[in-house]
Amino acid sequence: MSWNRVAVVGAGLIKFGELFDQSYEQMAAGAFAAAVDSVDHGFEPSQVEAAFVATQRGTLWGQEGIGGNTVPSAIGLAGIPCTRIENACPSGSDAFRVGAMAVASGVHDVVLVIGVEKMRDKSAEEGLLARAAAGHPIFTRGETAPVLFAPFATRHMHEFGTTREMLASVAVKNHYNGARDPYAHFQSEITVEDVLASPSVCSPLHLLDCCPQTDGAAATLLVRADIAERFTDHPVYVAGFGVATDHPYLHEKSSFVGLKATQLAAERAYAMADVSPADIDCAEVHDCFTITEILDIEDLGFVDKGKGGVASLDGETSLTGRIPINTSGGLLAKGHPIGATGVAQLTECWWQLRGEAGDRQVELRHGNALQHNVGGRGSGVSVINILTTNQP
Amino acid sequence: MSWNRVAVVGAGLIKFGELFDQSYEQMAAGAFAAAVDSVDHGFEPSQVEAAFVATQRGTLWGQEGIGGNTVPSAIGLAGIPCTRIENACPSGSDAFRVGAMAVASGVHDVVLVIGVEKMRDKSAEEGLLARAAAGHPIFTRGETAPVLFAPFATRHMHEFGTTREMLASVAVKNHYNGARDPYAHFQSEITVEDVLASPSVCSPLHLLDCCPQTDGAAATLLVRADIAERFTDHPVYVAGFGVATDHPYLHEKSSFVGLKATQLAAERAYAMADVSPADIDCAEVHDCFTITEILDIEDLGFVDKGKGGVASLDGETSLTGRIPINTSGGLLAKGHPIGATGVAQLTECWWQLRGEAGDRQVELRHGNALQHNVGGRGSGVSVINILTTNQP
Repeated sequence: MSWNRVAVVGAGLIKFGELFDQSYEQMAAGAFAAAVDSVDHGFEPSQVEAAFVATQRGTLWGQEGIGGNTVPSAIGLAGIPCTRIENACPSGSDAFRVGAMAVASGVHDVVLVIGVEKMRDKSAEEGLLARAAAGHPIFTRGETAPVLFAPFATRHMHEFGTTREMLASVAVKNHYNGARDPYAHFQSEITVEDVLASPSVCSPLHLLDCCPQTDGAAATLLVRADIAERFTDHPVYVAGFGVATDHPYLHEKSSFVGLKATQLAAERAYAMADVSPADIDCAEVHDCFTITEILDIEDLGFVDKGKGGVASLDGETSLTGRIPINTSGGLLAKGHPIGATGVAQLTECWWQLRGEAGDRQVELRHGNALQHNVGGRGSGVSVINILTTNQP
Repeated sequence: MSWNRVAVVGAGLIKFGELFDQSYEQMAAGAFAAAVDSVDHGFEPSQVEAAFVATQRGTLWGQEGIGGNTVPSAIGLAGIPCTRIENACPSGSDAFRVGAMAVASGVHDVVLVIGVEKMRDKSAEEGLLARAAAGHPIFTRGETAPVLFAPFATRHMHEFGTTREMLASVAVKNHYNGARDPYAHFQSEITVEDVLASPSVCSPLHLLDCCPQTDGAAATLLVRADIAERFTDHPVYVAGFGVATDHPYLHEKSSFVGLKATQLAAERAYAMADVSPADIDCAEVHDCFTITEILDIEDLGFVDKGKGGVASLDGETSLTGRIPINTSGGLLAKGHPIGATGVAQLTECWWQLRGEAGDRQVELRHGNALQHNVGGRGSGVSVINILTTNQP
């Protein structure tokens, strides 16, 4: 089944970083303005019929109860329907999927999807990582994000001979790409030695194996595919998407060398888009840690299980490699403002498919790009969207 | 335009109250089981293709980052897509709308919408009301919910001669209805004198003018209208819905005797369902405070602006009145577990339209029921769903 009923006619983001000088609402407005400006034939903000806002913690790290329905007023569109979508780290990816379904349902013709997250206004102790501990009385104490992913690295190294240098090569590649992305939080190249020498966070993950805490916002404009030509001569279509959940606790996992939610979501997304991994020109995947990208490219079918570390070290995932991964710099270099992350990844895919990625542009062979996030307690949810330039 | 592409084939809830003995996940599982049991021709849980979970604060009042994607594992459905919808007090209503759009989009044939909220596990000081203060540095200090709604009561009394007795009559009616609802938090009748004699919270609102803090969960099962007959001979259809936002701060309001978001959402919902207020047999509306129900019935077009107080005192909104309102007991008696509230209201509408409301059953003349929530900082968002037994 090929779907392609929804087109992306605009996308944009604000420069990611430590944005103490911008409010949550200002960040959202900046991303919206960038998306509006990106529409080839022009776009009137009043054309937006409904909005979906991805924010993981509301505002001020969840100290405030709401973070979605205040956005329309802030961007000059008070009155329009606005819904907050939260799905842990894939919040932005899932808001995009829900926005696409809203268009496909026939209820709305033009929908705005905004992702926005304030990560730095509260200290780490008041913020998400200190609070991510879940309801289980025993199994979740001390479960910060590095603690959730490090066991996968240990096991991957044990089963497949993956080395710390292979992990580091992911960070080196993504910082190389980030240095070519004007929107990235970090824009300087690093070396394998830098990664190995950085402080240990949770063995075997060191500081440069981890993504930073970043503020940011991104936005996309979705319309019915059959009216896309009003907005652009170069539409990008939503080819398909897939979402899957998994049991949330680590002791419930069936494997520590792969993420079941990603594997299941990938099956669904490829089936809906009627493509295979070989049809994908480039992908933005969830590299919250270096090991995560290695798991991702295996679980998404770009390399065989166990070969992700070698493929990364060998440059298969570089800008000029067989399957370029995280051309934007990824979470590791561009940053990970949770609600914004997926929407920003989709913006990178949109730029790549339109040939607008500048120094980061990949070779387009099939006209398909994939975007992926995994998250939640113990990688309990994965969301994938596939974009295409191929006509419906 | 008549819509009617989605049918509700199951709905149910757990008894609302102070549920210290149930976890968040247990509450969700209880509501899911109730919805499954309600399907006339039987329902296999494995038929659920995707879920939408309404929770306003995640779990533990937002102390935990996630509250949606852990639900599938808890109800035996790990693997299915699951998205958390948050839209302040209308979170449950909006999850229902999003679930309906997911079915209408053609992506999913069978969708579960669950609303669940833990309101009592944290003290009020740690909970929502103490944290609802928003980003504006001046205008939002001390803005608890009663403070946000009391000025509307004061102004309504000034402009239209509404009295405290009229406000109290809303609470008396809803507690009367709640005494006939086995799922209500409070199941005892009260008098106007009880309301007037209860302690002042924020003048002119007294304790019994305010809804309680309640734990609860509710669930509905949505399917494509053209396959509804597999599940039931008595389907209820989604006739339409409407959502509207408003500027969030009180000083930005254009009126203090009506809620603009509700008026705009009502226009949209009536237009989509192709009905007028006179076509509605009964309605569940947002009575977080007595004044709110008076504003609602005016803004929804059931009575003229300014006449809501008199209509309430005169019994027009009672079970046997012209337009029965909050037959379930409403937020005032049934309770207001935020994410669950809208889904529970829709369950009451579903029971009423199927003639299954027992002692609370209203006379069915047109086969339409309306459900409404308003919320967010300064009533910044309103969501309305209209259900019908009329064939598509």
